[in-house]
Formats: sequence, structure tokens, C-alpha cells
Amino acid sequence: MKFNLPYRGTSHTKILSHQTQVRVRFSEIDSMHIVWHGEYLRYFEDGREAFGRRYAGLSYMDIYQNGFTAPIADLRIQFKSPLTLNDIALIETRYLPTEAAKICFEYLIRRESDQQIVAQGHSLQVFLDSQNRLQLWPPSFYLAWKKRWGIE
Amino acid sequence: MKFNLPYRGTSHTKILSHQTQVRVRFSEIDSMHIVWHGEYLRYFEDGREAFGRRYAGLSYMDIYQNGFTAPIADLRIQFKSPLTLNDIALIETRYLPTEAAKICFEYLIRRESDQQIVAQGHSLQVFLDSQNRLQLWPPSFYLAWKKRWGIE
Amino acid sequence: MKFNLPYRGTSHTKILSHQTQVRVRFSEIDSMHIVWHGEYLRYFEDGREAFGRRYAGLSYMDIYQNGFTAPIADLRIQFKSPLTLNDIALIETRYLPTEAAKICFEYLIRRESDQQIVAQGHSLQVFLDSQNRLQLWPPSFYLAWKKRWGIE
Amino acid sequence: MKFNLPYRGTSHTKILSHQTQVRVRFSEIDSMHIVWHGEYLRYFEDGREAFGRRYAGLSYMDIYQNGFTAPIADLRIQFKSPLTLNDIALIETRYLPTEAAKICFEYLIRRESDQQIVAQGHSLQVFLDSQNRLQLWPPSFYLAWKKRWGIE
Repeated sequence: MKFNLPYRGTSHTKILSHQTQVRVRFSEIDSMHIVWHGEYLRYFEDGREAFGRRYAGLSYMDIYQNGFTAPIADLRIQFKSPLTLNDIALIETRYLPTEAAKICFEYLIRRESDQQIVAQGHSLQVFLDSQNRLQLWPPSFYLAWKKRWGIE
Repeated sequence: MKFNLPYRGTSHTKILSHQTQVRVRFSEIDSMHIVWHGEYLRYFEDGREAFGRRYAGLSYMDIYQNGFTAPIADLRIQFKSPLTLNDIALIETRYLPTEAAKICFEYLIRRESDQQIVAQGHSLQVFLDSQNRLQLWPPSFYLAWKKRWGIE
Repeated sequence: MKFNLPYRGTSHTKILSHQTQVRVRFSEIDSMHIVWHGEYLRYFEDGREAFGRRYAGLSYMDIYQNGFTAPIADLRIQFKSPLTLNDIALIETRYLPTEAAKICFEYLIRRESDQQIVAQGHSLQVFLDSQNRLQLWPPSFYLAWKKRWGIE
Repeated sequence: MKFNLPYRGTSHTKILSHQTQVRVRFSEIDSMHIVWHGEYLRYFEDGREAFGRRYAGLSYMDIYQNGFTAPIADLRIQFKSPLTLNDIALIETRYLPTEAAKICFEYLIRRESDQQIVAQGHSLQVFLDSQNRLQLWPPSFYLAWKKRWGIE
């Protein structure tokens, strides 16, 4: 497992990571017989939501019930190798600690059959309150979530 | 132009119909090099929304602003011929008058280049109020819409 | 489990049926906070493909490797109750025997939490050969598949 | 019109840019009542394809008919402001000249009503031949395309 993104955490910081998997669907395959590139954003979202269930308190629903939304503000994805029909995609989602009012994740998608990396990327989410105002400070529920899961 | 569905209206009823068009997108093409069948429900929805703009007052937004939603309750689609990349789909949407608390549409999709029919279908929508209760009587805004556009 | 479609099979015919499940994704939820109706065609397809893996030999890939494609020609869906975020949809797919060169399935989707029916429908697929010619007689691989699984 | 990406071209290089537009569809709106972030990759693709029609010879179909495919290898998108139902998105697609065997585009999406920037990003495509081998040198049809449109 290797990620090529800058942040690696420090020896003091717990790394939160979770793996989920999806089977490629026929409707996701394009006319080049590979998964259409845009579908990977669904896989990333599957990864985020599975992470949010594993480390309870950070799913869309949790965020919403605390009075906020957390839209994607920045997203990058690099494609290394294609996925095709009936491949199983293993989606590794890793939380990148930050002091800012942001949620940052790294993603690594591998093909189950040969463990080859097919895509990697990262995302940044910001917090909006119920009037869609950008939050400059981390909401208290987010600080509590970090504390609960040992993020400093 | 022919529809093969039972309702033809009567000589006293105005027929409301509207045509819009969409260009087939790469992401809609499946590995058989044709538009994936599920995408046609987007084309039907494009047809409904274009109809709702032409005969103002029946778009999703109009319905919502009157305190209702109108989810699809029944939908049928028959596929006659495939669409492929860069084809232009002509979507004919025809309102089927009913006295019930329902919105019924027929759809006819043709390929622009040769005017061949590629798909046809129909949909039935019901009305829910803001507490998601099924409406047994047509909402007053819907009766007003019908009157405005000459539907008896 | 009840299906409201006409064909029930006869006492001599084996009923082939398979259940699979999907978790509702955030990206499938529309602005009415329910699964967008078009997404159910993906659920139907998930059901068909899972059925094709259980009763090996009838997946898209199997059909393709035998020199055919089997596009959807007719599809109907009725919506009974909405699905929302994080619901688990149980998709029951039942093969409807036919002597024709067609593949017919019935679908029943229930919400896992309360077992309520959320949608049901059926689909009809036809066979095209590699030159996209409609097959009037069942391909031999299809007859072999039926024999293998006890369909008369 | 401003792009915040590094490449600006030189005074000797012609800038190829094209604008197209799409109307936001109901099915693209998520439960936060804004366009789901993944839909923007379709808008980028709409931009690329419209560019490829304007500057003939660089659409998916053109590339394919020359014996290649050009899958996305790297993609970044930044979200500035949301789009909602019935907004018109203006998609500006700008070709970024490169000597490499790559196709690079910048995108700028604005809301038509107030001309506000809603998203921007860039993409990098590589060339694969019919055996899916990565091309290290620009295919001849691509060099011809660049010459035709004045790219040095």
C-alpha cells in the first residue's frame, strides 16, 4: 500500500483508514469497455461513506444532523490502469488530519484480482452552515469526532 | 408521428405536446456502443421538464413551490432502435388528460438524422403533499394549470 | 413475497429466482431526498447480473461471448414507496420462462429494514447477433442454459 | 475570464478555446439541492466534445477512427459556487499546447445568470493504441490536427 500524496502524518498521530469494495456495474462501462472515468467519483464517495460508518460521526447524514453540509471544494484523481466489467474495486480511504475547518481524504483504488493500483486521488471538503455560510473554524461536532478517534 | 398508447383524447380536448432535443453524450454509451437503456429515463425527464417550461406551471419547481411533489408511480418504455454517439434524440412529450389526481405523459423519441423511432413510453405521476401524503383529489394549482391551457 | 404480474409458471416448471442487495448511495438521492426513479433501472440490472452469476451462463458477458447481445426491448416499473439514504434495497429477480427468443425477468425490490415493497417491474430482452440482426429463434446457448437449469 | 492554471501559452501560440452550455437537469441535483459534484465531469466532457466539434478532428470518435483511444490520466476540479436546478452552465474549454503525447485541457464553468465562476479544472489525456499500449510519441493524426489549427 503506497500513497503518493505529501501528508504522511507524524509518529504522534493515529492514521485512520478504511477499505471497502464495489463490483463494477455494466452501466459504468463505456464504449472503450472500461469504467467511465467519472464513475470513480462515486467510488471515492463510496469510500468516504464507508469510512464515515466505520469511524462513526462523519457521514453526510451525521454532518447534516449537526446542522452543516460538507461539499467537495477540491478534488484530484489520477488514473493508472482501467477497470472492466465484473472487476472488484478495493477502495482504501485514508483521513488526512488537518487543524483547519476542512475534511481531507486520500483514496487508493486497487483491482482485487491482481492488487494493481487503478486510481488514486484526494478530496477536500469545507463546512457550510444551514445558511450556506463557509465556516472558518472547525464545527464543535468535528472537533469532538477527532478527539473521539484519537486525531490530535 | 404515431403513438401506440390507448388514449387519443377526444375531439373536444386540446392536445398539448412539446418537442425538445438532446445530443447523446459519450458517458451515456455502453460497451455495446449504444445508449445504455437507463439513460432514456433522463431523456423522458428532459422531455417533461421542457414541456413544463413550454406550458408553464407544471415543472418540478412549479409543483414544489405549490407545496407538492409529483413522484413517478408507473413508467413503461419500449425500445425500438438504438441511439449511438453524437446522435440527436428528438423527444416528443404529450400530456394525456385525466380527471384524476395524476399527471400522465406519453413520450416518443426519434433519431433526428433519419426520423426513426428509437423509443416510446409513458409515465404516471401522483401528488404528495409536504407530509408525503398521497393526494386523492387534484391540487387546485393543477386544476388551474389545466384550465389555463385549455384542458377540460 | 408476492409478484403481481400475470405469469406464475406451471407446476411442472422450476422457478429460478435470486436475491441480491445494494446500499443506497448519496449520489442516487434526488432533491426530494429519495432515490431518483431512474436509478432503479440500475438496481434491476444489478438483479439481472447477480441472477446471471447465480445461474451461470446468462450474464451480459456470457451472452456476448456466445456471439450475441441481449438489449432491453421493453421495461416497466411501478414505484410503491421511496428509498432514502443508507437504506438497503433487497432486489429479487425471477426468471419468467418463455419459448420465444426472449429473456423475461420480474423484479421485486423491498426495503430491508421493514421489508416493505418499494418497486416492482419486469423486463424483456431480445437477442441480436454480431451484425445486430434480431434473432427469431432462441440461440443454442440459451436453449442449453435453460436445459441446464431445468427450464422446460 | 480568468484561469488560475500555470500554462498561459506564449505570444507565438494561438489559443484555442470554445464555449458550450448545458442546462442543469433534475437528476443531477443532490439532496443538498445542488448539482452533485460528480456531474461536473460530464460537463467537462461536454466541453471537450464541443471543442472537438468546433476544432474538428479531436473528438473521441476522431481519435478512435485513427486507431487510438485517449483516456483521462489525470483530472483536477475545484468547486467555487454551487449550481442548482434550471441554472445554465457555461463551459469554457481551452486547449493547452504541449509537445508531449498528451491532450491537456483547462475548464472554466460559470453560471449564466450572474456569470459567477462555479468550477474550474484541468484534464490530461494519454494515447493508447488498439492494443492498449501507451504512446510515447504523439500520433501523426494529432500532429496533423495541431498543424491544421495553428498550434506550434
